[in-house]
Amino acid sequence: MKIGNKNYQSIWLDESDPAIVKVIDQQRLPFFFEIKDLRSVDDIYGAIEDMTVRGAPSIGAAGAFGIYLATLEINSQTNIREHLLNAARYLISCRPTAVNLSWAVNYVMQKVNQDPSKKSLSETALEATIEICEKEKENCRQIGNHGLKLIETISKNKKNGPVNILTHCNAGWLASIDYGTALAPVYAAHDKGIPVHIWVDETRPRNQGAKLTAWELGQHGVPYTLIPDNAGGHLMQQKMVDIVIVGSDRTTRTGDSANKIGTYLKALAAYDNNVPFYSALPSTTIDFSISKGLEEIQVEVRDQEEVTNITGLSDGKILSVRICPDDAAAVNYGFDITPARLITGLITEKGICRATEKDIKEMFSDKFK
Amino acid sequence: MKIGNKNYQSIWLDESDPAIVKVIDQQRLPFFFEIKDLRSVDDIYGAIEDMTVRGAPSIGAAGAFGIYLATLEINSQTNIREHLLNAARYLISCRPTAVNLSWAVNYVMQKVNQDPSKKSLSETALEATIEICEKEKENCRQIGNHGLKLIETISKNKKNGPVNILTHCNAGWLASIDYGTALAPVYAAHDKGIPVHIWVDETRPRNQGAKLTAWELGQHGVPYTLIPDNAGGHLMQQKMVDIVIVGSDRTTRTGDSANKIGTYLKALAAYDNNVPFYSALPSTTIDFSISKGLEEIQVEVRDQEEVTNITGLSDGKILSVRICPDDAAAVNYGFDITPARLITGLITEKGICRATEKDIKEMFSDKFK
Repeated sequence: MKIGNKNYQSIWLDESDPAIVKVIDQQRLPFFFEIKDLRSVDDIYGAIEDMTVRGAPSIGAAGAFGIYLATLEINSQTNIREHLLNAARYLISCRPTAVNLSWAVNYVMQKVNQDPSKKSLSETALEATIEICEKEKENCRQIGNHGLKLIETISKNKKNGPVNILTHCNAGWLASIDYGTALAPVYAAHDKGIPVHIWVDETRPRNQGAKLTAWELGQHGVPYTLIPDNAGGHLMQQKMVDIVIVGSDRTTRTGDSANKIGTYLKALAAYDNNVPFYSALPSTTIDFSISKGLEEIQVEVRDQEEVTNITGLSDGKILSVRICPDDAAAVNYGFDITPARLITGLITEKGICRATEKDIKEMFSDKFK
Repeated sequence: MKIGNKNYQSIWLDESDPAIVKVIDQQRLPFFFEIKDLRSVDDIYGAIEDMTVRGAPSIGAAGAFGIYLATLEINSQTNIREHLLNAARYLISCRPTAVNLSWAVNYVMQKVNQDPSKKSLSETALEATIEICEKEKENCRQIGNHGLKLIETISKNKKNGPVNILTHCNAGWLASIDYGTALAPVYAAHDKGIPVHIWVDETRPRNQGAKLTAWELGQHGVPYTLIPDNAGGHLMQQKMVDIVIVGSDRTTRTGDSANKIGTYLKALAAYDNNVPFYSALPSTTIDFSISKGLEEIQVEVRDQEEVTNITGLSDGKILSVRICPDDAAAVNYGFDITPARLITGLITEKGICRATEKDIKEMFSDKFK
C-alpha cells in the first residue's frame, strides 16, 4: 500500500543488503514513521515479541525471514540441523496463538530440509520466504475482491449510501504484508468508489485500532471514526453498523476463530442485532488439525504493564502513563475465541464460506486429512 | 467508607462553613487524594460536568446541594422563583442520562416551593438535601445487605471458595455518597469474611474502573484484578466469573438499564455463558415514567478528547497522552442500554426482583401511577 507516493509492505528484504530484513516499526506509529533493520534471529524474535511487527500474516513472514537469517548465521563450526531446529523452536515459541508463525517457520524448514537442488540453504530459505510473502499478498488481494462484493451489496441496498463497517484491532496491510485481511475489502470498496465509513475500535490494551488502523485508513483516505471498545454494542443497537469485519489469528476447521481480545463481545452484539459478522483470513490462518476453539487454542498471556500503562504522544514524545493505583494487579489475555455459531461467514482467498466444518471442507478439501 | 482510619463520603457539607460543599476530587484519584470546595451553582455544575463528582446517586446529591447553594445566592434584588428555576434547569441539563440528577433537583425544588413552615428557603433546601443523602446512603446499605445473600450463596456452592465478581465502571461509594451500589454487596461480603475477588473493567474512555474502583477496593483491602474492557467475555467463557454486578444510571419500569458504555456487551457475554448478571440500584434510579430503554433513554455524547487522549500518571504528574493520529475523528457515547431480557435481577434497597415490569411493580407499587 502507499504511504505518500511510495509503495510499502510491512516487511521486506533490503534491496542493497540481503542480510537485512526491514520492517515498519509498528510500535512508533502513528506518531513516527520509521523503518527498523533486523539482522539476526534474535532481532526477529525481539521484533515479534515487542510487536514491532505484528498481525498473523506479518509475523508468519517475519518467522520465515527468521529462518533465512538463521541460515546466514551458519559457519563451519555450526551443527546445521541443530542450529536451524533451535532457531525454529525459538521463533515459534515467541507468540503462541497465531498459527501463521508456526506454519511459516515450518514451511521454510521443510523446504530447507528437503531441497535436493544445488542451491545454498540461504537461497532455499529466502526463496521459500519470498514465496510465502507473495502468496500471502495475493491471498489478501483475493480476500479484498471477495469481501468487496459483500460491501457492494450492502451499498446497493442502502441506495449507494455509505456502508458502516466496524472492525476490531488492526487487520490491515501492516498486519499482513500488504492489502490486509479485514481491511482488504474496505480498501477494495473505497478504491472502487463505494462510500465506506469505518468504526475503528481502539483495541485496548495496546490500542492497535487507535494507532495502526486509524493511521492506515487515514493514509489511504478512508473515512473513519475512532471509538472505545465499549461502544460497538451501542452502535449496533442504534443500527449504525452495517457489517462487522475482523481478522483472525487462528481459525479451527470448524470455524471457531481466535482474534484479538474483545472480538467475541462484538460478535455477540452483532448476533443480537442481526448485523452480519465476517472473519477475513487467508487459509494459512486455518488450523485444520483442531476443531474446538475454546479448548484447543492457546491464548497468549502478555505483560500486565500493557494494561496498567498506556503509551501515547505528549509534547512530541512517546511516553507511558500509569492509569491505575501503584499496586494494582492486572491480567492481560491477548485473544479470545469467537464460536463459529456467531460468525456469518469467513472471507478467504478462495471465496466466502459459512463458518462450518462442512463448508470449510468444501472450500479447502486438499487441506483436510 | 474509610480511607485510612477516617470515614468519608463522596460529598458533604463543610462542618465549619455551611456555605461550602465538599467533594472528593474524582479526577485526581487514584494518584492524589484531594478535597475540593464548591461554593456556587456554577461550581456544582462544573464539578458534575468535568466529573470531579460522578455516579448516579452522587450527582443526584450534588444537584440537590446545587439548589441549596442557589438559595444562598438570593439577595433583595433576586426574583427568587426565576432564580431557582434557572438554577434547577441549568443543573439538570448538565448530564442527561442519570435520572437521579433531575430527580434530586426536582425533589429539593418541590420542598422549597411547598414548605409552609417559617424556615428560610436555605434551611428547607439543606434539610431536603441532607434527607436525600441520608436516604441514598441507607438505600445503598440495604442494597449491600440484599446483594450479600447472592454472594453468600455462590460461595457456599463453591464450598467457601472465593467468589469472582466482574464489575464495570465505578458503582462504588464514590459514585453513591457511601457504601456503593454494585460494590455495596462486595463490601458487605468482604466485611463478613466471605472471600471475594473482583474483576475490574478499566472502563474506557475515562477509566473509572482502573482509577476509582481499583482505588476503592484497594483502600478497603478487597482483592481485585484490573482488566481491559475487552477481557470479560474471555473470562466468562473460561468460567472465571461467578457473577456480574453493575450499577445503573437510569432503569425503566420494565427493567431496561442505562449504564456506562460497554455494560451491554458484558450482559451479552454473561447471558451467553450462563453467568448471573445483576444491576444494583436504589429506586431513585428507576424512571417509572418510561418503559422502552432503547428508545426513551437519552444517551449522553461527551467530548471526543476523552477518546483520543488518555490521562494517567507520569513522573509524579497527571498528564494526557494522545493515542491516535492527529486528525482522527472520534465519538464518545457515555452509556448504553442493557435490555431487561439480559438482566438476571435488580438489587434494590427493598430486595432483589426480576427485571420485569410485573416484578418491579410488585416491589415499588407506590411509584406506579
